[in-house]
Amino acid sequence: MLIVGELINSSRKVVKPAIEKKDAKFIQDLAVNQINAGAHYVDVNCGTQVFGEEETMIWLVNSIQEICDAPLCIDSPSEKAIAAGLEAAKGNGKQQMINSITAEKDRYNAILPLVQQYQAKVVSLCMDDNGMPATKEDRVRIIDKLINDLTKDGVEEDQIYLDPLVKPVSTADKYGIDVLETVRYIRDNYPKVHAICGLSNISFGLPMRKLLNRLFMVQSMVAGMDSYILDPLDKDMMGAIFASQALLGQDEFCMNYLTAFRQGLYK
Amino acid sequence: MLIVGELINSSRKVVKPAIEKKDAKFIQDLAVNQINAGAHYVDVNCGTQVFGEEETMIWLVNSIQEICDAPLCIDSPSEKAIAAGLEAAKGNGKQQMINSITAEKDRYNAILPLVQQYQAKVVSLCMDDNGMPATKEDRVRIIDKLINDLTKDGVEEDQIYLDPLVKPVSTADKYGIDVLETVRYIRDNYPKVHAICGLSNISFGLPMRKLLNRLFMVQSMVAGMDSYILDPLDKDMMGAIFASQALLGQDEFCMNYLTAFRQGLYK
Repeated sequence: MLIVGELINSSRKVVKPAIEKKDAKFIQDLAVNQINAGAHYVDVNCGTQVFGEEETMIWLVNSIQEICDAPLCIDSPSEKAIAAGLEAAKGNGKQQMINSITAEKDRYNAILPLVQQYQAKVVSLCMDDNGMPATKEDRVRIIDKLINDLTKDGVEEDQIYLDPLVKPVSTADKYGIDVLETVRYIRDNYPKVHAICGLSNISFGLPMRKLLNRLFMVQSMVAGMDSYILDPLDKDMMGAIFASQALLGQDEFCMNYLTAFRQGLYK
Repeated sequence: MLIVGELINSSRKVVKPAIEKKDAKFIQDLAVNQINAGAHYVDVNCGTQVFGEEETMIWLVNSIQEICDAPLCIDSPSEKAIAAGLEAAKGNGKQQMINSITAEKDRYNAILPLVQQYQAKVVSLCMDDNGMPATKEDRVRIIDKLINDLTKDGVEEDQIYLDPLVKPVSTADKYGIDVLETVRYIRDNYPKVHAICGLSNISFGLPMRKLLNRLFMVQSMVAGMDSYILDPLDKDMMGAIFASQALLGQDEFCMNYLTAFRQGLYK
């Protein structure tokens, strides 16, 4: 299980002013708290900064690295911001993660060299120049192409984190099952490739969103999803992860579940 | 999804004295409250009454039927108590459920005539004269035998509720996965047969048992479990059921989820 803490994102109301005021302490606390809560990677996203995104990315990365050496997930729609973030992060000796590459021709060609140069893990979105796939056949075609292209281009299968892209069940009943099927396809055909997703889209438009997000996490773990971009400070969510692992036989003697319970990581 | 409300059970501390005092109102409220909370069947179990179990069963069934016509799940280790309960219940025009038959020779032969006579649904425990199966091969063998024997003896596949028997993950990491695998085997090979279980054994010996029970329910639904014996007054549990159905595309336009939310059935 790989957990990417999602909280350092300029689209969040509490983060935006901290970035504008260059409040390094706020960002540092957010990074450390996420790692202490169980995150393995810290996502860094300042994509809402239309001007100066690269400088902001560098400042964020440097601020975090002053206080902790957690590996980072450099997250941006801009390849320049990703490049700047990776370059700033390279001092900490950790393998960073890129968020994200796609099967869109331009995006693929822009991001691939960064994956290669920095030997980074890479979140790989299931979409191509026709957008997000509507059918199972299209999904499978894009996944096959993405994984085959990446491995041909020298990326190891276990560095690929395939994101099936989660859409709201409020807009189509089948969107949840689509994700579970896609994850099973990846597990059956590319056992070394990881499956990752963000959870909040699934519940868009419905009440009790945190409940839905949490249970979709539990469901997708059964299908074989093994990585999530989420809020590790959400104790109910972390409790659901520890409990699911214990129930799925992924936690020998339930030791992690018991340890996390004693440490108060959930409840 | 078929929910059997488990609360009328003489082993529960609050139920035992109500039975001893013949407090019909208490039992009736428990039945009605479970149905109002979303249960489809009301389990009736007085198996801790070593003496007079049959009379107690008849009193319980009559008391419930005075106030509501919910179908009942007649639950006992004693075939005489089951027979007495079914006979008392037959006036309400509903199809009752028997809890339970097994592949043990004597139990099978004692319960089968009741299933046939009362045309009842039947919980079918995955065990035979050698006890609970330890390996996948043994599980499959017992399931095949139970389903084949029952159908040969005139029981329709969709009247069979196969219970894989849940054991605590605290005693062996694989006990949760065993159940998921068994349910997938039933789904793949006997699509009309239902899979049912009680949940509380899974969490025996671990902290936060309600969390574990609830998430095991969510996990087993993904595998294809479609019936549960549980406490329908547990709002977190019922919320998890409604949410899981919405997420699994089993709830058109999420209408049941939204309706239950508005009615306060969860939260």
